[in-house]
Amino acid sequence: MKITIIGAGNVATQLAKRFYEKQCKILQVFNRTLENAQTLASLVNSEAIYNPKEINLNADFYIIAVNDDVIEHTAKQLSLILPKDKIIVHTSGATSSKVLQSCFENYGVFYPLQTFSKSQNADFDRLPICIHGSNDVTKNQLLTLAQTICPNVHFIDDEQRSTLHVAAVFANNFTNHLFAISERIATDANIPFDLLKPLINETVAKINENKPLLMQTGPAKRGDIKTLDRHLEYLKQYPTYHQIYALLSKDIQAFYSSKKDSFR
Amino acid sequence: MKITIIGAGNVATQLAKRFYEKQCKILQVFNRTLENAQTLASLVNSEAIYNPKEINLNADFYIIAVNDDVIEHTAKQLSLILPKDKIIVHTSGATSSKVLQSCFENYGVFYPLQTFSKSQNADFDRLPICIHGSNDVTKNQLLTLAQTICPNVHFIDDEQRSTLHVAAVFANNFTNHLFAISERIATDANIPFDLLKPLINETVAKINENKPLLMQTGPAKRGDIKTLDRHLEYLKQYPTYHQIYALLSKDIQAFYSSKKDSFR
Repeated sequence: MKITIIGAGNVATQLAKRFYEKQCKILQVFNRTLENAQTLASLVNSEAIYNPKEINLNADFYIIAVNDDVIEHTAKQLSLILPKDKIIVHTSGATSSKVLQSCFENYGVFYPLQTFSKSQNADFDRLPICIHGSNDVTKNQLLTLAQTICPNVHFIDDEQRSTLHVAAVFANNFTNHLFAISERIATDANIPFDLLKPLINETVAKINENKPLLMQTGPAKRGDIKTLDRHLEYLKQYPTYHQIYALLSKDIQAFYSSKKDSFR
Repeated sequence: MKITIIGAGNVATQLAKRFYEKQCKILQVFNRTLENAQTLASLVNSEAIYNPKEINLNADFYIIAVNDDVIEHTAKQLSLILPKDKIIVHTSGATSSKVLQSCFENYGVFYPLQTFSKSQNADFDRLPICIHGSNDVTKNQLLTLAQTICPNVHFIDDEQRSTLHVAAVFANNFTNHLFAISERIATDANIPFDLLKPLINETVAKINENKPLLMQTGPAKRGDIKTLDRHLEYLKQYPTYHQIYALLSKDIQAFYSSKKDSFR
Protein backbone atom coordinates (compact mmCIF):
# COMPACT_ATOMS: atom_id res chain seq x y z
CA MET A 1 0.00 0.00 0.00
CA LYS A 2 1.27 3.45 -0.95
CA ILE A 3 0.48 6.35 1.34
CA THR A 4 0.99 10.09 1.17
CA ILE A 5 1.08 11.91 4.49
CA ILE A 6 -0.04 15.52 4.58
CA GLY A 7 1.36 17.24 7.65
CA ALA A 8 4.46 16.69 9.78
CA GLY A 9 3.23 17.18 13.34
CA ASN A 10 2.83 14.62 16.14
CA VAL A 11 0.04 12.57 14.55
CA ALA A 12 1.62 12.64 11.08
CA THR A 13 4.96 11.58 12.54
CA GLN A 14 3.61 8.72 14.64
CA LEU A 15 1.41 7.39 11.83
CA ALA A 16 4.13 7.60 9.19
CA LYS A 17 6.64 5.83 11.43
CA ARG A 18 4.17 3.05 12.17
CA PHE A 19 3.22 2.56 8.51
CA TYR A 20 6.88 2.45 7.59
CA GLU A 21 7.60 -0.09 10.33
CA LYS A 22 4.80 -2.24 8.90
CA GLN A 23 6.27 -2.20 5.38
CA CYS A 24 3.87 0.35 3.85
CA LYS A 25 5.44 2.74 1.36
CA ILE A 26 5.24 6.39 2.39
CA LEU A 27 5.27 7.89 -1.08
CA GLN A 28 5.55 11.52 -0.01
CA VAL A 29 5.38 13.79 3.04
CA PHE A 30 3.70 17.06 2.10
CA ASN A 31 4.00 20.02 4.46
CA ARG A 32 3.92 23.81 4.09
CA THR A 33 7.28 24.04 5.82
CA LEU A 34 9.68 21.96 3.76
CA GLU A 35 12.14 21.54 6.62
CA ASN A 36 9.53 19.74 8.77
CA ALA A 37 8.52 17.57 5.82
CA GLN A 38 12.18 16.68 5.34
CA THR A 39 12.66 15.75 8.99
CA LEU A 40 9.78 13.30 8.84
CA ALA A 41 10.54 12.05 5.32
CA SER A 42 14.08 11.15 6.36
CA LEU A 43 12.70 8.92 9.14
CA VAL A 44 10.47 6.92 6.80
CA ASN A 45 12.54 6.79 3.61
CA SER A 46 10.17 9.15 1.80
CA GLU A 47 10.19 12.24 -0.39
CA ALA A 48 9.54 15.64 1.20
CA ILE A 49 7.50 18.21 -0.74
CA TYR A 50 5.97 21.59 0.12
CA ASN A 51 4.45 22.55 -3.24
CA PRO A 52 1.03 20.93 -3.84
CA LYS A 53 1.79 20.74 -7.57
CA GLU A 54 4.45 18.14 -6.80
CA ILE A 55 1.96 15.73 -5.27
CA ASN A 56 2.29 12.25 -6.75
CA LEU A 57 -1.03 10.91 -8.02
CA ASN A 58 -0.17 7.26 -7.44
CA ALA A 59 -0.80 6.90 -3.69
CA ASP A 60 -3.62 4.60 -2.53
CA PHE A 61 -4.37 6.81 0.48
CA TYR A 62 -3.90 10.50 1.21
CA ILE A 63 -3.90 11.10 4.96
CA ILE A 64 -4.46 14.68 6.09
CA ALA A 65 -2.90 14.99 9.55
CA VAL A 66 -2.92 18.76 10.06
CA ASN A 67 -4.49 21.10 12.63
CA ASP A 68 -8.29 20.93 12.70
CA ASP A 69 -8.76 24.47 11.48
CA VAL A 70 -6.84 23.92 8.23
CA ILE A 71 -8.21 20.49 7.25
CA GLU A 72 -10.87 21.90 4.93
CA HIS A 73 -8.49 24.32 3.28
CA THR A 74 -5.91 21.54 2.81
CA ALA A 75 -8.54 19.28 1.23
CA LYS A 76 -9.48 22.05 -1.22
CA GLN A 77 -5.83 22.47 -2.19
CA LEU A 78 -5.54 18.73 -2.80
CA SER A 79 -8.71 18.64 -4.87
CA LEU A 80 -7.09 20.94 -7.42
CA ILE A 81 -4.46 18.29 -8.05
CA LEU A 82 -5.93 14.86 -7.25
CA PRO A 83 -8.64 12.92 -9.13
CA LYS A 84 -12.00 13.04 -7.34
CA ASP A 85 -12.01 9.27 -6.71
CA LYS A 86 -8.85 9.14 -4.61
CA ILE A 87 -9.25 8.00 -0.99
CA ILE A 88 -8.70 10.96 1.30
CA VAL A 89 -9.00 10.88 5.10
CA HIS A 90 -8.32 13.23 7.95
CA THR A 91 -7.17 12.14 11.42
CA SER A 92 -9.18 14.50 13.62
CA GLY A 93 -11.50 13.48 16.44
CA ALA A 94 -13.19 16.87 16.43
CA THR A 95 -13.91 17.29 12.73
CA SER A 96 -16.73 15.85 10.64
CA SER A 97 -15.78 13.77 7.61
CA LYS A 98 -18.20 16.04 5.72
CA VAL A 99 -15.54 18.75 5.38
CA LEU A 100 -14.03 16.50 2.67
CA GLN A 101 -17.34 15.86 0.90
CA SER A 102 -17.35 18.76 -1.54
CA CYS A 103 -13.92 17.80 -2.89
CA PHE A 104 -13.87 14.00 -2.99
CA GLU A 105 -16.14 10.97 -3.37
CA ASN A 106 -14.14 8.44 -1.35
CA TYR A 107 -13.41 10.26 1.85
CA GLY A 108 -13.33 9.32 5.49
CA VAL A 109 -11.65 9.54 8.85
CA PHE A 110 -8.68 7.69 10.27
CA TYR A 111 -8.61 8.72 13.94
CA PRO A 112 -6.11 7.12 16.29
CA LEU A 113 -7.49 7.87 19.78
CA GLN A 114 -4.39 8.77 21.72
CA THR A 115 -2.41 11.75 22.96
CA PHE A 116 0.68 11.93 20.78
CA SER A 117 4.08 13.49 21.09
CA LYS A 118 6.73 13.53 18.40
CA SER A 119 9.43 11.86 20.44
CA GLN A 120 7.51 9.21 22.43
CA ASN A 121 6.45 6.29 20.23
CA ALA A 122 2.71 5.61 20.34
CA ASP A 123 1.64 2.08 21.20
CA PHE A 124 -0.33 1.03 18.11
CA ASP A 125 -0.69 -2.46 19.52
CA ARG A 126 -3.08 -1.06 22.17
CA LEU A 127 -4.61 2.24 21.07
CA PRO A 128 -7.84 2.13 19.05
CA ILE A 129 -8.07 3.48 15.52
CA CYS A 130 -11.56 4.78 14.76
CA ILE A 131 -12.37 4.73 11.07
CA HIS A 132 -15.23 6.01 8.98
CA GLY A 133 -15.75 5.98 5.21
CA SER A 134 -18.18 7.67 2.85
CA ASN A 135 -19.13 4.35 1.20
CA ASP A 136 -18.58 0.62 1.56
CA VAL A 137 -15.57 0.42 -0.72
CA THR A 138 -13.82 3.20 1.17
CA LYS A 139 -14.75 1.62 4.50
CA ASN A 140 -13.22 -1.69 3.46
CA GLN A 141 -10.06 -0.08 2.17
CA LEU A 142 -9.65 1.91 5.37
CA LEU A 143 -10.24 -1.20 7.45
CA THR A 144 -7.46 -3.01 5.59
CA LEU A 145 -5.16 -0.02 6.00
CA ALA A 146 -5.89 0.36 9.72
CA GLN A 147 -5.49 -3.34 10.45
CA THR A 148 -2.05 -3.22 8.87
CA ILE A 149 -0.82 -1.14 11.80
CA CYS A 150 -3.26 -1.82 14.64
CA PRO A 151 -5.23 -4.80 16.00
CA ASN A 152 -7.82 -2.51 17.64
CA VAL A 153 -9.86 -0.95 14.82
CA HIS A 154 -13.45 0.33 15.19
CA PHE A 155 -16.02 1.76 12.79
CA ILE A 156 -17.15 5.00 14.44
CA ASP A 157 -19.34 7.41 12.49
CA ASP A 158 -19.15 11.20 12.61
CA GLU A 159 -21.69 11.60 15.36
CA GLN A 160 -20.17 8.96 17.62
CA ARG A 161 -16.66 10.28 17.04
CA SER A 162 -17.78 13.75 18.04
CA THR A 163 -19.15 12.31 21.30
CA LEU A 164 -16.03 10.22 21.79
CA HIS A 165 -13.99 13.39 21.49
CA VAL A 166 -16.00 15.02 24.30
CA ALA A 167 -15.40 11.95 26.46
CA ALA A 168 -11.70 12.09 25.58
CA VAL A 169 -11.47 15.70 26.74
CA PHE A 170 -12.74 14.64 30.18
CA ALA A 171 -10.51 11.56 30.28
CA ASN A 172 -7.35 13.25 29.09
CA ASN A 173 -7.29 17.08 28.98
CA PHE A 174 -9.24 17.64 32.19
CA THR A 175 -7.55 14.82 34.06
CA ASN A 176 -4.18 16.26 33.13
CA HIS A 177 -5.33 19.67 34.30
CA LEU A 178 -6.30 18.19 37.68
CA PHE A 179 -2.79 16.76 37.91
CA ALA A 180 -1.44 20.24 37.19
CA ILE A 181 -3.64 21.72 39.94
CA SER A 182 -2.56 19.00 42.34
CA GLU A 183 1.08 19.74 41.58
CA ARG A 184 0.57 23.46 42.12
CA ILE A 185 -1.12 22.93 45.50
CA ALA A 186 1.60 20.53 46.63
CA THR A 187 4.59 22.54 45.47
CA ASP A 188 3.17 25.79 46.89
CA ALA A 189 3.36 24.00 50.28
CA ASN A 190 6.89 22.72 49.57
CA ILE A 191 5.68 19.17 49.06
CA PRO A 192 7.28 17.41 46.09
CA PHE A 193 4.70 16.32 43.49
CA ASP A 194 6.55 12.98 43.30
CA LEU A 195 4.77 11.99 46.52
CA LEU A 196 1.50 11.95 44.59
CA LYS A 197 2.63 9.94 41.59
CA PRO A 198 2.15 6.45 43.08
CA LEU A 199 -1.40 7.52 43.97
CA ILE A 200 -2.05 8.73 40.43
CA ASN A 201 -0.62 5.56 38.91
CA GLU A 202 -2.84 3.45 41.15
CA THR A 203 -5.92 5.55 40.33
CA VAL A 204 -5.48 4.61 36.71
CA ALA A 205 -4.45 1.01 37.34
CA LYS A 206 -7.81 0.57 39.07
CA ILE A 207 -9.89 1.61 36.06
CA ASN A 208 -8.30 -1.17 34.08
CA GLU A 209 -9.88 -3.57 36.57
CA ASN A 210 -13.24 -2.06 37.40
CA LYS A 211 -15.69 0.71 36.53
CA PRO A 212 -14.53 4.12 37.85
CA LEU A 213 -17.88 4.58 39.59
CA LEU A 214 -17.18 1.53 41.72
CA MET A 215 -13.66 2.64 42.62
CA GLN A 216 -14.49 6.09 44.01
CA THR A 217 -13.16 6.95 47.48
CA GLY A 218 -12.60 10.16 49.45
CA PRO A 219 -14.44 12.72 51.54
CA ALA A 220 -17.12 13.62 48.95
CA LYS A 221 -18.08 10.01 48.41
CA ARG A 222 -18.17 9.36 52.17
CA GLY A 223 -20.19 12.53 52.72
CA ASP A 224 -17.46 13.70 55.15
CA ILE A 225 -18.64 17.31 55.48
CA LYS A 226 -15.99 18.29 58.04
CA THR A 227 -13.14 17.41 55.68
CA LEU A 228 -14.88 18.99 52.67
CA ASP A 229 -15.33 22.22 54.60
CA ARG A 230 -11.72 22.25 55.75
CA HIS A 231 -10.49 21.70 52.19
CA LEU A 232 -12.74 24.47 50.84
CA GLU A 233 -11.46 26.81 53.53
CA TYR A 234 -7.87 26.03 52.51
CA LEU A 235 -8.66 26.57 48.83
CA LYS A 236 -9.94 30.12 49.35
CA GLN A 237 -6.44 31.23 48.32
CA TYR A 238 -7.07 29.65 44.88
CA PRO A 239 -10.54 30.92 43.83
CA THR A 240 -10.82 28.80 40.66
CA TYR A 241 -9.62 25.62 42.38
CA HIS A 242 -12.15 26.36 45.12
CA GLN A 243 -14.90 26.44 42.48
CA ILE A 244 -13.64 23.24 40.84
CA TYR A 245 -13.43 21.48 44.22
CA ALA A 246 -16.95 22.55 45.17
CA LEU A 247 -18.49 21.57 41.84
CA LEU A 248 -16.84 18.15 41.54
CA SER A 249 -17.49 17.32 45.20
CA LYS A 250 -21.13 18.28 44.82
CA ASP A 251 -21.49 16.01 41.80
CA ILE A 252 -19.78 13.09 43.57
CA GLN A 253 -21.94 13.61 46.67
CA ALA A 254 -25.13 13.79 44.61
CA PHE A 255 -24.31 10.56 42.86
CA TYR A 256 -23.32 8.49 45.86
CA SER A 257 -25.96 9.79 48.22
CA SER A 258 -28.62 8.80 45.69
CA LYS A 259 -27.07 5.32 45.41
CA LYS A 260 -26.17 4.95 49.07
CA ASP A 261 -27.46 1.41 49.36
CA SER A 262 -25.47 0.00 46.50
CA PHE A 263 -22.26 2.05 46.79
CA ARG A 264 -21.44 2.40 50.47
CA MET B 1 8.95 -4.97 66.57
CA LYS B 2 5.54 -5.79 68.00
CA ILE B 3 2.53 -4.02 66.55
CA THR B 4 -1.16 -3.90 67.43
CA ILE B 5 -3.50 -2.94 64.61
CA ILE B 6 -6.75 -1.21 65.52
CA GLY B 7 -9.25 -1.58 62.68
CA ALA B 8 -9.74 -4.19 59.97
CA GLY B 9 -10.57 -2.13 56.86
CA ASN B 10 -8.52 -1.58 53.70
CA VAL B 11 -5.66 0.38 55.28
CA ALA B 12 -5.46 -1.89 58.35
CA THR B 13 -5.41 -4.96 56.12
CA GLN B 14 -2.73 -3.71 53.74
CA LEU B 15 -0.50 -2.44 56.54
CA ALA B 16 -0.84 -5.60 58.63
CA LYS B 17 -0.05 -7.83 55.67
CA ARG B 18 3.02 -5.78 54.78
CA PHE B 19 4.34 -5.75 58.38
CA TYR B 20 3.82 -9.48 58.59
CA GLU B 21 5.61 -10.02 55.28
CA LYS B 22 8.54 -8.01 56.69
CA GLN B 23 8.77 -10.19 59.82
CA CYS B 24 7.12 -7.78 62.25
CA LYS B 25 4.93 -9.42 64.88
CA ILE B 26 1.26 -8.35 64.70
CA LEU B 27 0.44 -8.90 68.36
CA GLN B 28 -3.30 -8.29 68.05
CA VAL B 29 -5.98 -7.08 65.63
CA PHE B 30 -8.59 -5.08 67.54
CA ASN B 31 -11.92 -4.33 65.86
CA ARG B 32 -15.48 -3.67 67.04
CA THR B 33 -16.72 -6.47 64.82
CA LEU B 34 -14.91 -9.61 65.93
CA GLU B 35 -15.51 -11.39 62.64
CA ASN B 36 -13.60 -8.74 60.66
CA ALA B 37 -10.79 -8.81 63.22
CA GLN B 38 -10.62 -12.58 62.82
CA THR B 39 -10.47 -12.40 59.02
CA LEU B 40 -7.46 -10.09 59.17
CA ALA B 41 -5.80 -11.83 62.15
CA SER B 42 -5.90 -15.15 60.32
CA LEU B 43 -3.93 -13.59 57.42
CA VAL B 44 -1.12 -12.32 59.64
CA ASN B 45 -0.88 -15.03 62.30
CA SER B 46 -2.32 -12.75 64.97
CA GLU B 47 -4.92 -12.69 67.73
CA ALA B 48 -8.33 -11.12 67.05
CA ILE B 49 -10.05 -9.13 69.83
CA TYR B 50 -13.08 -6.88 69.98
CA ASN B 51 -13.11 -6.00 73.71
CA PRO B 52 -10.72 -3.14 74.55
CA LYS B 53 -10.07 -4.71 77.95
CA GLU B 54 -8.27 -7.56 76.19
CA ILE B 55 -5.67 -5.26 74.66
CA ASN B 56 -2.15 -6.52 75.27
CA LEU B 57 0.10 -3.82 76.81
CA ASN B 58 3.30 -5.17 75.29
CA ALA B 59 3.14 -3.81 71.74
CA ASP B 60 5.76 -1.25 70.65
CA PHE B 61 3.27 0.51 68.35
CA TYR B 62 -0.51 0.88 68.36
CA ILE B 63 -1.73 1.79 64.89
CA ILE B 64 -5.25 3.22 64.66
CA ALA B 65 -6.49 2.52 61.12
CA VAL B 66 -10.18 3.34 61.47
CA ASN B 67 -12.54 5.82 59.77
CA ASP B 68 -11.57 9.45 60.35
CA ASP B 69 -14.66 10.24 62.37
CA VAL B 70 -13.98 7.60 65.04
CA ILE B 71 -10.22 8.09 65.47
CA GLU B 72 -10.60 10.40 68.47
CA HIS B 73 -13.15 8.16 70.16
CA THR B 74 -10.97 5.10 69.56
CA ALA B 75 -7.96 6.87 71.06
CA LYS B 76 -9.99 7.73 74.19
CA GLN B 77 -11.02 4.08 74.55
CA LEU B 78 -7.38 3.01 74.27
CA SER B 79 -6.25 5.60 76.81
CA LEU B 80 -8.36 3.89 79.48
CA ILE B 81 -6.25 0.74 79.03
CA LEU B 82 -2.81 1.74 77.81
CA PRO B 83 -0.04 3.58 79.67
CA LYS B 84 0.26 7.23 78.59
CA ASP B 85 3.78 6.74 77.17
CA LYS B 86 2.88 4.12 74.57
CA ILE B 87 3.44 5.10 70.92
CA ILE B 88 0.05 5.60 69.23
CA VAL B 89 -0.44 6.69 65.64
CA HIS B 90 -3.33 7.08 63.27
CA THR B 91 -3.14 6.54 59.49
CA SER B 92 -5.34 9.38 58.26
CA GLY B 93 -4.37 12.03 55.75
CA ALA B 94 -7.26 14.25 56.77
CA THR B 95 -6.87 14.22 60.57
CA SER B 96 -4.51 16.21 62.77
CA SER B 97 -2.20 14.26 65.06
CA LYS B 98 -3.53 16.56 67.80
CA VAL B 99 -6.65 14.41 68.22
CA LEU B 100 -4.35 11.97 70.07
CA GLN B 101 -2.70 14.65 72.24
CA SER B 102 -5.07 14.64 75.19
CA CYS B 103 -4.67 10.87 75.67
CA PHE B 104 -1.01 10.15 74.96
CA GLU B 105 2.47 11.70 75.08
CA ASN B 106 4.12 9.79 72.24
CA TYR B 107 1.67 10.10 69.43
CA GLY B 108 1.91 10.66 65.73
CA VAL B 109 0.75 9.83 62.23
CA PHE B 110 1.67 6.97 59.92
CA TYR B 111 0.04 7.90 56.60
CA PRO B 112 0.59 5.72 53.55
CA LEU B 113 -0.42 7.95 50.62
CA GLN B 114 -2.30 5.54 48.39
CA THR B 115 -5.80 4.44 47.49
CA PHE B 116 -6.27 1.04 49.07
CA SER B 117 -8.55 -1.89 48.47
CA LYS B 118 -8.69 -5.00 50.61
CA SER B 119 -8.03 -7.45 47.80
CA GLN B 120 -5.42 -5.65 45.68
CA ASN B 121 -1.99 -5.62 47.35
CA ALA B 122 -0.55 -2.14 47.77
CA ASP B 123 2.92 -1.54 46.37
CA PHE B 124 4.89 -0.49 49.47
CA ASP B 125 8.08 -0.44 47.43
CA ARG B 126 6.79 2.65 45.61
CA LEU B 127 4.14 4.47 47.64
CA PRO B 128 5.29 7.11 50.15
CA ILE B 129 4.65 6.79 53.86
CA CYS B 130 4.29 10.22 55.49
CA ILE B 131 5.15 10.18 59.18
CA HIS B 132 4.92 12.68 61.99
CA GLY B 133 5.69 12.34 65.69
CA SER B 134 4.99 14.45 68.76
CA ASN B 135 8.68 14.43 69.80
CA ASP B 136 12.09 13.31 68.56
CA VAL B 137 12.01 9.89 70.19
CA THR B 138 8.64 9.12 68.64
CA LYS B 139 9.78 10.47 65.28
CA ASN B 140 12.82 8.20 65.28
CA GLN B 141 10.82 5.15 66.30
CA LEU B 142 8.27 5.81 63.56
CA LEU B 143 11.04 6.30 61.02
CA THR B 144 12.49 2.90 61.91
CA LEU B 145 9.05 1.30 61.74
CA ALA B 146 8.19 2.88 58.38
CA GLN B 147 11.54 2.01 56.84
CA THR B 148 10.94 -1.62 57.74
CA ILE B 149 8.18 -1.80 55.15
CA CYS B 150 8.88 1.06 52.73
CA PRO B 151 11.92 2.74 51.12
CA ASN B 152 10.00 5.98 50.51
CA VAL B 153 9.42 7.60 53.93
CA HIS B 154 8.90 11.34 54.48
CA PHE B 155 8.49 13.53 57.56
CA ILE B 156 5.33 15.55 56.85
CA ASP B 157 3.83 17.66 59.63
CA ASP B 158 0.11 18.15 60.31
CA GLU B 159 -0.19 21.29 58.22
CA GLN B 160 1.62 19.85 55.20
CA ARG B 161 -0.29 16.59 55.42
CA SER B 162 -3.56 18.49 55.38
CA THR B 163 -2.45 20.26 52.18
CA LEU B 164 -1.19 17.01 50.70
CA HIS B 165 -4.63 15.56 51.30
CA VAL B 166 -6.25 18.37 49.33
CA ALA B 167 -3.80 17.74 46.48
CA ALA B 168 -4.58 14.00 46.69
CA VAL B 169 -8.31 14.68 46.33
CA PHE B 170 -7.63 16.45 43.02
CA ALA B 171 -5.15 13.79 41.86
CA ASN B 172 -7.26 10.79 42.81
CA ASN B 173 -10.93 11.38 43.71
CA PHE B 174 -11.62 14.07 41.12
CA THR B 175 -9.60 12.34 38.41
CA ASN B 176 -11.54 9.16 39.01
CA HIS B 177 -14.78 11.12 38.83
CA LEU B 178 -13.75 12.52 35.44
CA PHE B 179 -13.18 8.95 34.30
CA ALA B 180 -16.69 8.10 35.50
CA ILE B 181 -18.11 11.08 33.58
CA SER B 182 -16.16 10.09 30.48
CA GLU B 183 -17.51 6.54 30.75
CA ARG B 184 -21.08 7.82 31.12
CA ILE B 185 -20.82 10.08 28.05
CA ALA B 186 -19.30 7.27 25.97
CA THR B 187 -21.66 4.50 27.00
CA ASP B 188 -24.72 6.75 26.59
CA ALA B 189 -23.66 6.98 22.93
CA ASN B 190 -23.06 3.20 22.70
CA ILE B 191 -19.30 3.65 22.62
CA PRO B 192 -17.42 1.15 24.83
CA PHE B 193 -15.35 2.89 27.54
CA ASP B 194 -12.51 0.48 26.67
CA LEU B 195 -11.76 2.70 23.67
CA LEU B 196 -10.68 5.43 26.09
CA LYS B 197 -8.45 3.35 28.33
CA PRO B 198 -5.27 3.50 26.23
CA LEU B 199 -5.68 7.30 26.23
CA ILE B 200 -6.06 7.36 30.01
CA ASN B 201 -3.05 5.12 30.52
CA GLU B 202 -0.95 7.37 28.30
CA THR B 203 -2.18 10.52 30.09
CA VAL B 204 -0.70 9.16 33.28
CA ALA B 205 2.41 7.65 31.72
CA LYS B 206 3.24 11.18 30.55
CA ILE B 207 3.24 12.72 34.03
CA ASN B 208 5.92 10.26 35.06
CA GLU B 209 8.11 11.91 32.44
CA ASN B 210 7.25 15.57 32.55
CA LYS B 211 5.27 18.22 34.43
CA PRO B 212 1.50 17.99 33.70
CA LEU B 213 1.46 21.67 32.73
CA LEU B 214 3.88 20.93 29.90
CA MET B 215 1.89 17.94 28.65
CA GLN B 216 -1.49 19.63 28.19
CA THR B 217 -3.21 19.27 24.82
CA GLY B 218 -6.77 19.73 23.53
CA PRO B 219 -9.20 22.40 22.41
CA ALA B 220 -9.04 24.55 25.57
CA LYS B 221 -5.27 24.74 25.46
CA ARG B 222 -5.29 25.52 21.72
CA GLY B 223 -8.01 28.13 22.25
CA ASP B 224 -10.14 26.25 19.68
CA ILE B 225 -13.41 28.07 20.36
CA LYS B 226 -15.38 26.25 17.64
CA THR B 227 -14.73 22.84 19.21
CA LEU B 228 -15.33 24.14 22.75
CA ASP B 229 -18.69 25.56 21.67
CA ARG B 230 -19.71 22.34 19.96
CA HIS B 231 -18.79 20.29 23.03
CA LEU B 232 -20.73 22.64 25.32
CA GLU B 233 -23.73 22.41 23.02
CA TYR B 234 -23.58 18.61 23.20
CA LEU B 235 -23.27 18.67 26.99
CA LYS B 236 -26.50 20.62 27.49
CA GLN B 237 -28.14 17.24 28.10
CA TYR B 238 -25.86 16.83 31.19
CA PRO B 239 -26.15 20.16 33.06
CA THR B 240 -23.49 19.37 35.68
CA TYR B 241 -21.01 18.03 33.14
CA HIS B 242 -21.67 21.18 31.12
CA GLN B 243 -20.68 23.26 34.16
CA ILE B 244 -17.58 21.15 34.81
CA TYR B 245 -16.54 21.36 31.15
CA ALA B 246 -16.97 25.14 31.09
CA LEU B 247 -15.11 25.71 34.35
CA LEU B 248 -12.13 23.47 33.59
CA SER B 249 -11.84 24.74 30.02
CA LYS B 250 -11.90 28.34 31.26
CA ASP B 251 -9.11 27.62 33.71
CA ILE B 252 -6.99 25.85 31.09
CA GLN B 253 -7.58 28.68 28.61
CA ALA B 254 -6.70 31.33 31.19
CA PHE B 255 -3.47 29.59 32.03
CA TYR B 256 -2.24 28.93 28.52
CA SER B 257 -3.32 32.23 27.02
CA SER B 258 -1.36 34.06 29.72
CA LYS B 259 1.69 31.90 28.95
CA LYS B 260 1.24 31.78 25.20
CA ASP B 261 4.87 32.47 24.44
CA SER B 262 6.28 29.65 26.50
CA PHE B 263 3.58 27.00 26.08
CA ARG B 264 2.46 27.08 22.47
